[in-house]
Amino acid sequence: MRSLVCSYQWFSLSFFVFSLGVSAFNIPRLGTVQRTHQHEPRTISSSSNLPEDLKTFYYTQRLDHFNYRPDSYATFHQRYFVNFKYWGGAKSGAPIFAYLGAEAPVDPDINFIGFLRENAPHFNALIVYIEHRYYGKSIPFGSWKEAMRNASTRGYFNSAQAIADYASVLLHLKKSLSARNSPVIVIGGSYGGMLASWFRLKYPHVALGALASSAPILYFNGVAPRAGYYYIVTKDFQETSMSCYQTIRRSWSEIDRVAKKPNGLSILSTMFRTCKKLRHSSELKDYLDSVYAEAAQYDHPASYPVKAICGAIDAAAKKTNNILDQIFEGVVAFMKNKSCYDLNIFNYPSQTNMGWRWQTCSEMVMPIGHEESDSMFPPAPFNMKTFVKECRSLYGVLPQPHWVTTYYGGPGLKLKLRRFASNIIFSNGLRDPYSSGGVLESISDSVVAVSTVNGSHCLDILEATPNDPQWLVMQRKSEVKIIKGWIAKYQADLRALNNQNISYN
Amino acid sequence: MRSLVCSYQWFSLSFFVFSLGVSAFNIPRLGTVQRTHQHEPRTISSSSNLPEDLKTFYYTQRLDHFNYRPDSYATFHQRYFVNFKYWGGAKSGAPIFAYLGAEAPVDPDINFIGFLRENAPHFNALIVYIEHRYYGKSIPFGSWKEAMRNASTRGYFNSAQAIADYASVLLHLKKSLSARNSPVIVIGGSYGGMLASWFRLKYPHVALGALASSAPILYFNGVAPRAGYYYIVTKDFQETSMSCYQTIRRSWSEIDRVAKKPNGLSILSTMFRTCKKLRHSSELKDYLDSVYAEAAQYDHPASYPVKAICGAIDAAAKKTNNILDQIFEGVVAFMKNKSCYDLNIFNYPSQTNMGWRWQTCSEMVMPIGHEESDSMFPPAPFNMKTFVKECRSLYGVLPQPHWVTTYYGGPGLKLKLRRFASNIIFSNGLRDPYSSGGVLESISDSVVAVSTVNGSHCLDILEATPNDPQWLVMQRKSEVKIIKGWIAKYQADLRALNNQNISYN
Repeated sequence: MRSLVCSYQWFSLSFFVFSLGVSAFNIPRLGTVQRTHQHEPRTISSSSNLPEDLKTFYYTQRLDHFNYRPDSYATFHQRYFVNFKYWGGAKSGAPIFAYLGAEAPVDPDINFIGFLRENAPHFNALIVYIEHRYYGKSIPFGSWKEAMRNASTRGYFNSAQAIADYASVLLHLKKSLSARNSPVIVIGGSYGGMLASWFRLKYPHVALGALASSAPILYFNGVAPRAGYYYIVTKDFQETSMSCYQTIRRSWSEIDRVAKKPNGLSILSTMFRTCKKLRHSSELKDYLDSVYAEAAQYDHPASYPVKAICGAIDAAAKKTNNILDQIFEGVVAFMKNKSCYDLNIFNYPSQTNMGWRWQTCSEMVMPIGHEESDSMFPPAPFNMKTFVKECRSLYGVLPQPHWVTTYYGGPGLKLKLRRFASNIIFSNGLRDPYSSGGVLESISDSVVAVSTVNGSHCLDILEATPNDPQWLVMQRKSEVKIIKGWIAKYQADLRALNNQNISYN
Repeated sequence: MRSLVCSYQWFSLSFFVFSLGVSAFNIPRLGTVQRTHQHEPRTISSSSNLPEDLKTFYYTQRLDHFNYRPDSYATFHQRYFVNFKYWGGAKSGAPIFAYLGAEAPVDPDINFIGFLRENAPHFNALIVYIEHRYYGKSIPFGSWKEAMRNASTRGYFNSAQAIADYASVLLHLKKSLSARNSPVIVIGGSYGGMLASWFRLKYPHVALGALASSAPILYFNGVAPRAGYYYIVTKDFQETSMSCYQTIRRSWSEIDRVAKKPNGLSILSTMFRTCKKLRHSSELKDYLDSVYAEAAQYDHPASYPVKAICGAIDAAAKKTNNILDQIFEGVVAFMKNKSCYDLNIFNYPSQTNMGWRWQTCSEMVMPIGHEESDSMFPPAPFNMKTFVKECRSLYGVLPQPHWVTTYYGGPGLKLKLRRFASNIIFSNGLRDPYSSGGVLESISDSVVAVSTVNGSHCLDILEATPNDPQWLVMQRKSEVKIIKGWIAKYQADLRALNNQNISYN
């Protein structure tokens, strides 16, 4: 089994591992990329594991692009990596593939995201990976602790500043390479996919096009789908096994029933082999919730974890009538056999976990909850009031749920994209619960949806393997073909202007 | 003679009158809209002179859209005006015409900008005029003095924040009118025209299209034209009268020659009937520079001031050989006969004058200078070093000349607009010196240049009169036709989606 980014990430002791603070907010899955441990630990945090062709750079980035206060003039060092190996050179006008980092250090992604380096040779493309501010080594104020210290230092940590960073880095890079005529294609997954599509919308003069993989840009206040994240999780399990689905559905009340017994929490702790004794049954329920969601979101065809969980649950049902024993077999199938299970694994105070929680509490308010229709789970709809209250108590800020839709577009966006947008691929796997907030229908000739029925989160941009199913191979091929079309049109435009001797200022 | 905005504005005692701080920076014409006194004073500052149909509103606007610092959560009251008279109502999907205020209080513009109210009846349009932050009554921090006190309070005073304000006001307005399906057309002139085109680029989900009148969006660092502002001023005078042009061209050294005489400054003061005795010949030269530039920029067909100046200069040449006497006759023709001439008239510390100076010193760095080719003027090219130094000493900030081109697009913009932009009219009058930084060729089917050979600054959106020349009438008609086309396409899209019962989220 490979380790993946924009997907599960192997557990290491570094802060790359994270989960999403479910119980703190009662809002499961605030993040768009989930990186939880599975199987064996492996260290991926060191840049020394990066491909040899890669060079590391730091750009002196402005802290605040949208203000001229004295504080705003502060700078920080933003890390980016460049791979020159396949680059056809500035004179040839060969393209630049730019991976836009998301809510994590960018270096692990370099290993797991295959799309750029697998296609660069064919395009003679330069490859760039840019790290998102406040993550990895791109931290203002000298240290992560200082950067996250209070509302004044955290205030600059948001998506508009981040994509302005990307514009600055890319323009700097193009200038220093004299690569004025090299079209830039931005690529990102999950939150990074949203950034890629928004980047094309906001900085079309910098990027010719965007591949936005698993980008739930329609999952915001005022636009969010009725059948949302957990509806898809449920559907994935239903389609895999109705009996498994029923078992999970019935398990919640069974947990409550056992918990209420004398020593109930001890019994549950033993049954689920938890590393620490349960203090409340919600700890177990939140954990199971995360296991199912994670399995659905990262239902990679190399292992199909939903199938693995349901296989184990259904097999256990033949041996025991105890629902919770059956459920535990599902956990073992997903997390592998361990001496004990750390129920906190999804809630470590990692950089990504803490960073993304801040982002959701300030602007990235995605109203994900358990609706009535998400029938595998006990209903617990998203509650904005509670959310606002918890964010205020955590950070002292008032979330701005309308800002993302104001800045990037909200209700009616698809109709509007039709007239003003171009050169964006929205790729989705329909088994990914986040596809519920994705663009799943092509909007115009050049704002195109590429979906796969059996795909999961970010699958298309992950490293290709010889065992990839044909539909995944085809999805990637069609994306490459679309991008080729954009570049060909751009080059034709450029030639036409040059022939007419028209300045293209 | 009518008074105009986006054009000369009649002198009043209010702070609406301004000029551009020429001598302070040695950079004439930093501003895009020039409002200087001419002829008789008339008060236009009071809202009581506004049309009766207009209602005044204040929106509680966020001070900083791009930060979550505690300070950023501060708000201010942003003024806007709505005219419901012609509005066809939300149900009919009738459009909204939104005038985006520029570097001045917005209320005078309501009188002088005719385009919205003249065309609203035909479109059944709602009309909105929104004031730019830090101008008029839309001032943060309680007062203009407080708002401009230091770098911390001025920092929020920039174009990105301003267009985010417009997006917030327009979305609020659409929501409160339940006018979700009403397309918004934004309209602006000069700096406001830049804002309108940038608004369509940055917030295409809010505005269906933009009419950007006399918007020199290509007049920024790295893109700026070789033959710039003063080249066009010179051309305007050359085309009007070669002898007049020669007289002006020769006058600068004549001023210097007289100034060097014993009592030379007294002689010049008397010749030019200055209200205060000249302290340096540059005061006179800066003043004349502004007179010619203003005449060229606002060369309205109702009076053709360039023709008036040259007519007077050439007529004087028949009576006297003294070049400076001839020049003075040109001044009188432009400024009308006065007991004395206030050479400071272009430099009053008005709100607009001071506000725009701040804007140019922070981000709106337009490298306008006197190039060698601007043969009517003594060469004095734009000097970035001097500019930066003067801005630092004035405001303590470092100008960011690359920011406008990073955020809105710079070199190669036209080629790129071709692929990503739609529904923008760039209208220009080619006698307007700012047309040198305008988009003068259509870029695509829907990014269209509408220029007139004899037009001047913002002419198309000013109030129409029965005496308007046919070419101006035609320019306006073609703009209306284009806007009608955008709205028709939008409504067809909307119907198609409704018929398909496709949600357009």
